[in-house]
Amino acid sequence: MMNRVAIIGYGISKFGKRLDASMYDLIWEAGSEAIRSSGVDKKDIDYMVVSNMGMWSSEELPAVVAGEVLGIRNAGLHRVEAACASGSSAIASAYDAIRSGRSKIAIALGIEKMNEVESETAIELIGRAGNFLWEYEFFGLTFPGYYALYATAYLNKYSGKEEDLALVSVKNHHYAHLNPIAHFSNKITVDDVMKSRYIASPLKLYDSSPITDGSAAVILASEDVAKQYTDTPVWIDAIGSNLGTANLSKRDDFVHIDAAREAAAKAYRMAKIDSTKPYKYFDGADVHDCFSIAEVLAYEDLGFAERGKGLEMLRNDETYIGGKIPVNVDGGLISKGHPIGATGVAMAVEASKQLLRKAEPGRQIDVKNGKFLTHNVGGTGHYAYVTIYSV
Amino acid sequence: MMNRVAIIGYGISKFGKRLDASMYDLIWEAGSEAIRSSGVDKKDIDYMVVSNMGMWSSEELPAVVAGEVLGIRNAGLHRVEAACASGSSAIASAYDAIRSGRSKIAIALGIEKMNEVESETAIELIGRAGNFLWEYEFFGLTFPGYYALYATAYLNKYSGKEEDLALVSVKNHHYAHLNPIAHFSNKITVDDVMKSRYIASPLKLYDSSPITDGSAAVILASEDVAKQYTDTPVWIDAIGSNLGTANLSKRDDFVHIDAAREAAAKAYRMAKIDSTKPYKYFDGADVHDCFSIAEVLAYEDLGFAERGKGLEMLRNDETYIGGKIPVNVDGGLISKGHPIGATGVAMAVEASKQLLRKAEPGRQIDVKNGKFLTHNVGGTGHYAYVTIYSV
Repeated sequence: MMNRVAIIGYGISKFGKRLDASMYDLIWEAGSEAIRSSGVDKKDIDYMVVSNMGMWSSEELPAVVAGEVLGIRNAGLHRVEAACASGSSAIASAYDAIRSGRSKIAIALGIEKMNEVESETAIELIGRAGNFLWEYEFFGLTFPGYYALYATAYLNKYSGKEEDLALVSVKNHHYAHLNPIAHFSNKITVDDVMKSRYIASPLKLYDSSPITDGSAAVILASEDVAKQYTDTPVWIDAIGSNLGTANLSKRDDFVHIDAAREAAAKAYRMAKIDSTKPYKYFDGADVHDCFSIAEVLAYEDLGFAERGKGLEMLRNDETYIGGKIPVNVDGGLISKGHPIGATGVAMAVEASKQLLRKAEPGRQIDVKNGKFLTHNVGGTGHYAYVTIYSV
Repeated sequence: MMNRVAIIGYGISKFGKRLDASMYDLIWEAGSEAIRSSGVDKKDIDYMVVSNMGMWSSEELPAVVAGEVLGIRNAGLHRVEAACASGSSAIASAYDAIRSGRSKIAIALGIEKMNEVESETAIELIGRAGNFLWEYEFFGLTFPGYYALYATAYLNKYSGKEEDLALVSVKNHHYAHLNPIAHFSNKITVDDVMKSRYIASPLKLYDSSPITDGSAAVILASEDVAKQYTDTPVWIDAIGSNLGTANLSKRDDFVHIDAAREAAAKAYRMAKIDSTKPYKYFDGADVHDCFSIAEVLAYEDLGFAERGKGLEMLRNDETYIGGKIPVNVDGGLISKGHPIGATGVAMAVEASKQLLRKAEPGRQIDVKNGKFLTHNVGGTGHYAYVTIYSV
């Protein structure tokens, strides 16, 4: 029986357009809080993984700088990248190092400082998450354009309306309003979404996640060590991950994300979860809503809804607290923000807060089964990670 | 007792200024050879790690492209980066995923296509491996400049001469001449090194590794699975890694690399090697000679020579085949080349070839103990990985 891995501390920076903070400041905000909350002496941290996509920052190789900012000296170190799923890859890498026996206490830290360039440049650069040569350079598809293809295909096939998609953003803004670290704190209506300008039809500004600066960190420990630091560990039960094709033209259809389904299947197998009714196991979930359509696809790819029934969950408020399964009650990527390298780690922070009943009033889920799922997609299904946490 | 991890196949591209090949071509050269040589069906590869530093290539996020080029569909995937030690980080990450139980058969592939930009630009970009803001932007130190500081400090402290350092390049070119994939195939003399132009005094052109394009890949498998594919697995006995300070001004001195010593200490502990006489255990080693001085520091940081005695090993030909411990008989970074993301994986390929007695005539080491060490440094001691292989 191998050692289980627990989260024993976490930290997260304020998300937003953080022109007040350098990359170093953001690393410090999340990292020092994670270390302090765990009670670990930084000398005992023997492994460090930093997730960061880069490209928009002059500090293109920030892992070693993160170690220095936090005063970590005795650790193995590397940076991981899996496009927008980089943060979940950092969790996986630290988890593996502990399970492998090479680490006892590890820090996984995600960081992205995106607002060093103009947002148009950032959007252009995100487009490189796919196949640069064929789809970005030849066809001119930028990132919102990719997800607009999904939205168009989905709404056509299942007779959905743009107003249905808008419900994702309304829900997620509702909860971001209650989350002090969220990028946006305004509540919005379907009408607000519908009146916002088109970014890539049918997706509008309010269907889209913003260009966010932020950082998040967790301290992970092997089971034997975790118990020395906390009576309330949050366990990582399972991690499933899978790649997708680089070239979107090789996908079977545009109404699901194959990599996410595979990642979920692997995680469910590992955690012994009945994949026909997975939602029964979870008290809540964070899914990758980089655009509103992505949250709908996630419902179906994860088995929370049957194929083509994702929009119904939204119309019936089934993913609010009190519904079938609360989703993105931290505000999601759309309203909490999406600092790319930090996002997957921020999901781990949210899983920990929720399972330990430490979420802010109004957005605390009802913890009954003690399980929480996170779903993190890189690119447009180029990578997917599904991680299951429990108390 | 945890599952051991074996290398069951390997592949490597021709190293050099590969203007004939795209990044995709290089990935294919190494990756397809690794898969073919392992006998594994690519459907059974369930994990993939790609090491790449990027910055000089238009394909900045190449991991997913590598998966597509090789036709791998059912695998978890991420990219790792640890500056010039990225390749060893890929080996470590794949090893951890297998030991963790999340993978049975993994591919670690390193790739760097550096000659898409002018070599001056590449050298400038490598300088970012340190602390960009303080040392690169303010002080104007480029990468050769960092190692020139080491060389100056070392030659002063231990009364060494530039002619002594030249012996590194003479030896490594001697062996590169026998290695068909090496970037350079010319034999050189001390006189040639001394007459080459200064890059950053006291380091000259022939003291420096070139800007190289290349790729390398290995297939790793858990012990139970490995035996289904091969009777001659190469085991990974130990991996030690450690970070260093981002800022060189925080180092204790410039005559050793702290991260490398720590990484070696961890690896020796893990492999139960007597750290007072480690060279007795190994039939050979590949060390990180990005500059000639770096190979000398490696001898001492690894415990092959006492402090200040590194140059003596060179003067006495102790690191040629037949000497105390043969080092870099593949040509090393200086003459085989240093395609950054590929280098650590190329060291794993070399370890496998040597231990399986498949190296080319004239550069095959005498395999007695059946152990081989690799030493891979990122930046100027910002990262270090020491990996021990055995048959």
